[in-house]
Amino acid sequence: MSKLGKVYLVGAGPGDPDLLTIRAVQRISLADVIVYDRLIQQGVIALAKASAEKIYMGKPPGHHNRQAEIHALLVKKAREGKTVVRLKGGDPFLFGRGGEEVEYLAEHGIPFEVVPGVSACLSAPLSANIAVTHREASSSVAIVTGHCAVGHVDHTDWKALTKIDTLVFLMGVHNVAAIAANLIAAGRSPETPAAMIQMAYWDGEQVVTSSLAGIAAEVQRRGIEPPATLVVGEVVRLREKLRQLMAQSKENLKENREEEVLV
Amino acid sequence: MSKLGKVYLVGAGPGDPDLLTIRAVQRISLADVIVYDRLIQQGVIALAKASAEKIYMGKPPGHHNRQAEIHALLVKKAREGKTVVRLKGGDPFLFGRGGEEVEYLAEHGIPFEVVPGVSACLSAPLSANIAVTHREASSSVAIVTGHCAVGHVDHTDWKALTKIDTLVFLMGVHNVAAIAANLIAAGRSPETPAAMIQMAYWDGEQVVTSSLAGIAAEVQRRGIEPPATLVVGEVVRLREKLRQLMAQSKENLKENREEEVLV
Repeated sequence: MSKLGKVYLVGAGPGDPDLLTIRAVQRISLADVIVYDRLIQQGVIALAKASAEKIYMGKPPGHHNRQAEIHALLVKKAREGKTVVRLKGGDPFLFGRGGEEVEYLAEHGIPFEVVPGVSACLSAPLSANIAVTHREASSSVAIVTGHCAVGHVDHTDWKALTKIDTLVFLMGVHNVAAIAANLIAAGRSPETPAAMIQMAYWDGEQVVTSSLAGIAAEVQRRGIEPPATLVVGEVVRLREKLRQLMAQSKENLKENREEEVLV
Repeated sequence: MSKLGKVYLVGAGPGDPDLLTIRAVQRISLADVIVYDRLIQQGVIALAKASAEKIYMGKPPGHHNRQAEIHALLVKKAREGKTVVRLKGGDPFLFGRGGEEVEYLAEHGIPFEVVPGVSACLSAPLSANIAVTHREASSSVAIVTGHCAVGHVDHTDWKALTKIDTLVFLMGVHNVAAIAANLIAAGRSPETPAAMIQMAYWDGEQVVTSSLAGIAAEVQRRGIEPPATLVVGEVVRLREKLRQLMAQSKENLKENREEEVLV
């Protein structure tokens, strides 16, 4: 029996290779095999050894057995004695089924390590100048999958969500109308500010803001596509406030310069 | 008027310098001034230039004006033309008042950039082998400050929190008894698994697990101190399951080796 390899579940962060952790870069550079998903940038894959085997396992829509294939692949490569890096967008333990992957590895006696990453749930709002908590406006944040509003049965307690200050929905572009309608029906004010952030830290980053009542129409009008993160709550106002202040200070700077010229 | 400097609000992650992002390391290495808090490791500060001015601004208990001092300091140094890195534990926009700091900078016309970090809210559970979401056990996570249970008025809607699958309380060591009591009184089962993770990614990392009814006594018995993260929810079971599986596979490995010797 050959020596067992090890599987590293590594969070690749929101996109930009700059936002990988030092530890992630180090693990990637050691890998004999990289198994990666749809939302991993080429600049991240490029950090691996040239000799490393790079295996794309992005899930095509409707391909329901892909997760089982990934499990089997990780175990097979580790049993060949390989150092395997399983790259996952964002953080490996927030959605994305990282917990199931380590469970499967443990069941098969494969050593593993999990490396945390910068999650889109916080970094997408941040890239849009939205702090998800604020001393006056928000002391609680809920992170919910945007798939919540679909399926045969909706298990989401919308009433409970209306009591949380800031809501972050991942993977919610296609369901934004249902999410907004459910929240409003459950008692959240239609005037609550909302923002949808498309492709944070990628080329193609785009932010739309509106009220909860208006966000779905705005998302459609602007042609927002997945991946995108929806933020609902008073904290969205920080973005507008910062924009105004920064525009003002540019204006002031310009006036000062003009004065200097006049003097 | 000298050229304005710039302030970088940089997330330093959960502790270990290895868990800084590449971008954070790059910004730290450029800094003329580093302004840092209590929960920043020396190995992180050591990444700055030897000539950089390192200013410790950890908040001593009861020192209520410290935030105003930090605001004034950042503006002063930027106006001297300095490149300032404001280092914050975890992510700069999840608690820790990062939103207020950029608001103040914008009001004073100081250019800034915010660099996201690995937040303790996800990485502390991860370090204890707890995935905060799970396909079967959890599709929603709420992040709440552990200060919620104290003060003159408790604004927390405990009933709503009982409807969220996984709860993460930051800064909750001293209030763990009140948090657990409030959740149980609001209808969460006393049998819900709970874990307290002390000093994730530092020397002195320690994890205690119990039921929601038992966690406060266990935290006290084991002498857990801040900083620590409390996780409540079925997902805590993953930790125990992984421990059992890994113990088993070590046992199997040992048996295999013994068989080989016998053969």
